[in-house]
Amino acid sequence: MTTLVEVARAAGVTAATVSNVLRNRGKVGEETRQRVLEAVERLGYRPNLMARALVEGKPHTMALLVSSIANPFYPEFALEVERAARKLGYFLLVCNTNEDPAQERAYLDAIGGALAQGVIVMNADFVQLDALQDLRRRGVPVVLCMWERPQEPPPLPCVAVDLYQAGVLAAEHLLRLGHRRIGVVCGGEPGGNHRWRLRGFLDTLEQAGAALPPSCLRHGHDTIDGGRDAAHRLLAGGPGLTAVFATNDLPAVGVLQAAAELSLQVPGDLSVIGVTDIQLARQMRPPLSTVAMPTTEAAALAVQLLQSEIDASPDHVPPMRVTEAPRLVVRASTSAPRREGILGGADSGD
Amino acid sequence: MTTLVEVARAAGVTAATVSNVLRNRGKVGEETRQRVLEAVERLGYRPNLMARALVEGKPHTMALLVSSIANPFYPEFALEVERAARKLGYFLLVCNTNEDPAQERAYLDAIGGALAQGVIVMNADFVQLDALQDLRRRGVPVVLCMWERPQEPPPLPCVAVDLYQAGVLAAEHLLRLGHRRIGVVCGGEPGGNHRWRLRGFLDTLEQAGAALPPSCLRHGHDTIDGGRDAAHRLLAGGPGLTAVFATNDLPAVGVLQAAAELSLQVPGDLSVIGVTDIQLARQMRPPLSTVAMPTTEAAALAVQLLQSEIDASPDHVPPMRVTEAPRLVVRASTSAPRREGILGGADSGD
Repeated sequence: MTTLVEVARAAGVTAATVSNVLRNRGKVGEETRQRVLEAVERLGYRPNLMARALVEGKPHTMALLVSSIANPFYPEFALEVERAARKLGYFLLVCNTNEDPAQERAYLDAIGGALAQGVIVMNADFVQLDALQDLRRRGVPVVLCMWERPQEPPPLPCVAVDLYQAGVLAAEHLLRLGHRRIGVVCGGEPGGNHRWRLRGFLDTLEQAGAALPPSCLRHGHDTIDGGRDAAHRLLAGGPGLTAVFATNDLPAVGVLQAAAELSLQVPGDLSVIGVTDIQLARQMRPPLSTVAMPTTEAAALAVQLLQSEIDASPDHVPPMRVTEAPRLVVRASTSAPRREGILGGADSGD
Repeated sequence: MTTLVEVARAAGVTAATVSNVLRNRGKVGEETRQRVLEAVERLGYRPNLMARALVEGKPHTMALLVSSIANPFYPEFALEVERAARKLGYFLLVCNTNEDPAQERAYLDAIGGALAQGVIVMNADFVQLDALQDLRRRGVPVVLCMWERPQEPPPLPCVAVDLYQAGVLAAEHLLRLGHRRIGVVCGGEPGGNHRWRLRGFLDTLEQAGAALPPSCLRHGHDTIDGGRDAAHRLLAGGPGLTAVFATNDLPAVGVLQAAAELSLQVPGDLSVIGVTDIQLARQMRPPLSTVAMPTTEAAALAVQLLQSEIDASPDHVPPMRVTEAPRLVVRASTSAPRREGILGGADSGD
């Protein structure tokens, strides 16, 4: 991949001059300017796109790459990102990869090719980090958003939310209410993106002397239907559970559905808590207790960080911004257990 | 606004030659090509963007302009549009105007300025039709989608769905179940976008001798909260209603919430039916009966139509594609009335 320095060498100028030409800044003679632009073209260098946009008079746009626009969290987050971007004079383009790596790569190439001045990437898994690092090396500003583990930063600029803490808060809430026989529905594969919040939940239970037996943890797709299926498996095999923690609001809604299908009253027979606080959480009957992500703040930080990346040279150490901690939101889907062991196998009956 | 013909006159060539140059088609000598491109630049002509993209090697993109990405219908529709666009080799950019006319105008300008090769606009109201016609005259392909009244086509290429028929189907369903005391929650202002489906519903009741009294029609925001508020007003003042038609699924979900808050069983005490069939309709407990929009078909038609607009000259008569009719989807939120007049004032008691 051609670097700014190689372009400078080929044009017989300093890197600062190349940068000035591409950003339309500083005083550069017309002949030098032409020589730089020719070197850029000949070597196939992809300059900072903001600079190119300034030169060509293109609109200022940021792209938001989401993996599944059908997951209601992403449109809600996109709305916040758009508000923040608009305040800085940017349009927001929403690109949906539909969890298809080829589609994701194609969007990233298009963004590298001029679609936007930079890109905010949601929930990058480890496979695509390489592609994103390539993109950044080519001078395209990239910001990861909703990195779930501030203690282990990724090799890219990012906005992190401490999701381990979300698991801690959910566990503390259920323990405080008096629950001891708790089940977990975890969205995604074991070892997937939800592992940190799961870890926070499990660690907290263990520290309280209420460690979760393996049979009380089920994984499922990170969707409503996935949560419902996992909840049916959990409740069919579970020893008198009085509460379920779902690692995301969508599967938590699925747990509410499964409870309704099994004629279990929520929260009397079964308390249910999720993570995120999507609008649907408020709209369910009963409304869902959850641990709210700082969505508005994360969106604003991502846009600010992307803007500073657009204005910066691409070879600095990737910065990380950490949001405020997630926050417990208690609604009507959690309460003290009415009685223990409604599904049999309660402590008192052991 | 500069036209293709003016460019041709200035360059001393035919309009067909200008078109060939801009589309990179046909045999055009290099000197002629340069003369045309100079005339294009001098006159500030905005050529068909697909042509420009071909010349400049930009990615092929379509834009989808939605008024509210927080309304779950739009992400669901965007997903379908993206699938259809991808089959034709296009990326889809989702632009959210947030119901802000200035923001909408800015996006349209950006699209005219090179953001995408064409734009699909959802739910255009009458104010912005002018702006869209301007855009089309400047050679930017525009397709309206979900035009609700095929009998009265707009002055732009469009995909129409007969939403009057949706109102007819909902009314016939409730009448067939035996309901006669029916209320309506209409999303949006009187005279707004929902007027055709409302008209279809009211006409059908009237033809069946069950005309709706004005007190049984309430308008509210086209949202869950708007539907809930309107339903509370309706049910507080309504004379023993046994069923409610909401002109959209979101307010219908709000009616379900209001029923729960009033301890009314759905469907025993109150049947509820919506329009659209968003995913949430299936996810409610009870799942919502509705009249399904042909979303997948409309998305595919919109993409096909936009592609043919991209390939066509901008001065032909705007074509219209009409989808198959909406379709009744019966779920558990509607049934025969258990008894009449649960809220007092029933027929038998009058």
